[in-house]
Amino acid sequence: MEKPYVIGMDMGGTNTVFGVVDSRGNVVSKSAIKTGTHTDVNLYVQDLFDEMSKLIHSAGGSDKIKGIGVGAPNGNYYTGNIEFAPNLPWKGVIPFAKLMTEKFGIPTALTNDANAAAVGEMTYGGARGMKNFIMITLGTGVGSGIIIDGRVVYGHDGFAGELGHTCAVRENGRLCGCGKHGCLETYCSATGVARSAREILGSTTKDSSLRNIPVDSITSKDVFDAAMEGDDVAKEIFQFTGKILGQSLADFVAFSAPEAIAIFGGLSKSGDLIMNPIREHMEANLLPLWRGKVKLFFSELKEADAAILGASALAWEL
Amino acid sequence: MEKPYVIGMDMGGTNTVFGVVDSRGNVVSKSAIKTGTHTDVNLYVQDLFDEMSKLIHSAGGSDKIKGIGVGAPNGNYYTGNIEFAPNLPWKGVIPFAKLMTEKFGIPTALTNDANAAAVGEMTYGGARGMKNFIMITLGTGVGSGIIIDGRVVYGHDGFAGELGHTCAVRENGRLCGCGKHGCLETYCSATGVARSAREILGSTTKDSSLRNIPVDSITSKDVFDAAMEGDDVAKEIFQFTGKILGQSLADFVAFSAPEAIAIFGGLSKSGDLIMNPIREHMEANLLPLWRGKVKLFFSELKEADAAILGASALAWEL
Repeated sequence: MEKPYVIGMDMGGTNTVFGVVDSRGNVVSKSAIKTGTHTDVNLYVQDLFDEMSKLIHSAGGSDKIKGIGVGAPNGNYYTGNIEFAPNLPWKGVIPFAKLMTEKFGIPTALTNDANAAAVGEMTYGGARGMKNFIMITLGTGVGSGIIIDGRVVYGHDGFAGELGHTCAVRENGRLCGCGKHGCLETYCSATGVARSAREILGSTTKDSSLRNIPVDSITSKDVFDAAMEGDDVAKEIFQFTGKILGQSLADFVAFSAPEAIAIFGGLSKSGDLIMNPIREHMEANLLPLWRGKVKLFFSELKEADAAILGASALAWEL
Repeated sequence: MEKPYVIGMDMGGTNTVFGVVDSRGNVVSKSAIKTGTHTDVNLYVQDLFDEMSKLIHSAGGSDKIKGIGVGAPNGNYYTGNIEFAPNLPWKGVIPFAKLMTEKFGIPTALTNDANAAAVGEMTYGGARGMKNFIMITLGTGVGSGIIIDGRVVYGHDGFAGELGHTCAVRENGRLCGCGKHGCLETYCSATGVARSAREILGSTTKDSSLRNIPVDSITSKDVFDAAMEGDDVAKEIFQFTGKILGQSLADFVAFSAPEAIAIFGGLSKSGDLIMNPIREHMEANLLPLWRGKVKLFFSELKEADAAILGASALAWEL
């Protein structure tokens, strides 16, 4: 193969990680730079170029690189722009794919991070061979990548798949960072779990090891640790979180009838604690024709490489 | 053109209508037979053959017919089967496309009625030229046809697009015919509107001309007629119906980011009475990036021919 490698890059608010990936999904080399310290996107691209060039050189030069795939918050596949990303230092519309292509002389594709994860799951993960599935990413927020007929759903404007901002709780739903109320993200993100902890601890007098932590400092990891030690309140928090997510997943199935739904991100470390209630409430809310038929699994992508792999998979299509 | 015509056929629980359609979407001839009186599907196909052959003969014979497109309740595009349709006289799985192809010697494609309507809208209606839109059919039930990248979304099993059975009301939602609670269909179908009328009339003592009708006999048409005469309770019923639908449409936009949503079927006759609250509550529940950008319109397909046209559009793809 003339060009045996691609580069996958995951842009987070704090760090940007990237790696050279071969066609089997092996990350043959990787590195990282800081994102948030670059207030000028051109200096950021320059630093990326300096660091990434070392990896490209080791791989045999840019002639060996088919393309660069970038997963970025608020990344738009159609335009290659990053548009109004609240967690990045650059405001407005940044023509990022164009900046990269010009700087590196290598074709660059860009999408949002959840779409990149979905492509990665389809190319290298548990959704290999599937043409219809949905990836739900549980992290600071709740993201989603939707695959239909083997392709990412971008929609009319490139921003499809904002399932974290569908309404999970209609009456008295929590205020979301997007300005709406009741968004799925306000319940099932890591911060959503922490909010649930505060609510449930505040509305009960039950004993819980979580009461040893200042209530505003409780994280989803604290809830996980407590639940693993058998804490009933912590387990109730996971039950509640899983119920909300499972109910929503049933509606997503009614939309695109996926073969499977993959769960990705930090909360998935909670294993059966979160998966059991998700599954129970998804099944209870599915139309009878789908009960017992929709696979539900945690992403198989290696945590450390997942973001790089997902983004890299985009580049093979260039 | 060697084969200048297709046949579109819409199978309802009571009647089956069909017509010969040219490439411009003109229904050049049409006819109908009863559906519900045929307890044996083979006799139904025989009667279809007898009646449809007259139209085919007038069109110049079956050599002039490219294909037959069928919209049927619970029709599965992948298999060509009608599967467990509650409102048809035949139980279980009926290989209907196969029966038709064998009987007529003409390729036959089958899909559910809402998907057929969506294809019709894209081919002949207000969604001409659009690649991403959603068709919502408001009738006895609430159906949907989803178009992404110019193609109907069928999903893994062929049954995608059951938006009438997504959850519109999570707490104390109405019992649906599907066995779940709170489905959109229980609020926004014609029968849902009648249920709303009974609920709202029962929970208030406001004057309303609807009180002159026995409460269990009120239909959505009665509500429409009353609203047109300025009846406040009837207008409140439409407000409520439009609110529920608009909220749900906002979530559908978050899934597939359509350019437009088309509303089709009986309730759309209610015009602004229903469209205004739909639009208001959709907009209020959209992510900011989509506000003011998603078109919302009533289907432009001629009521009498819509079903035939929608189904016929499928046949051009054969």
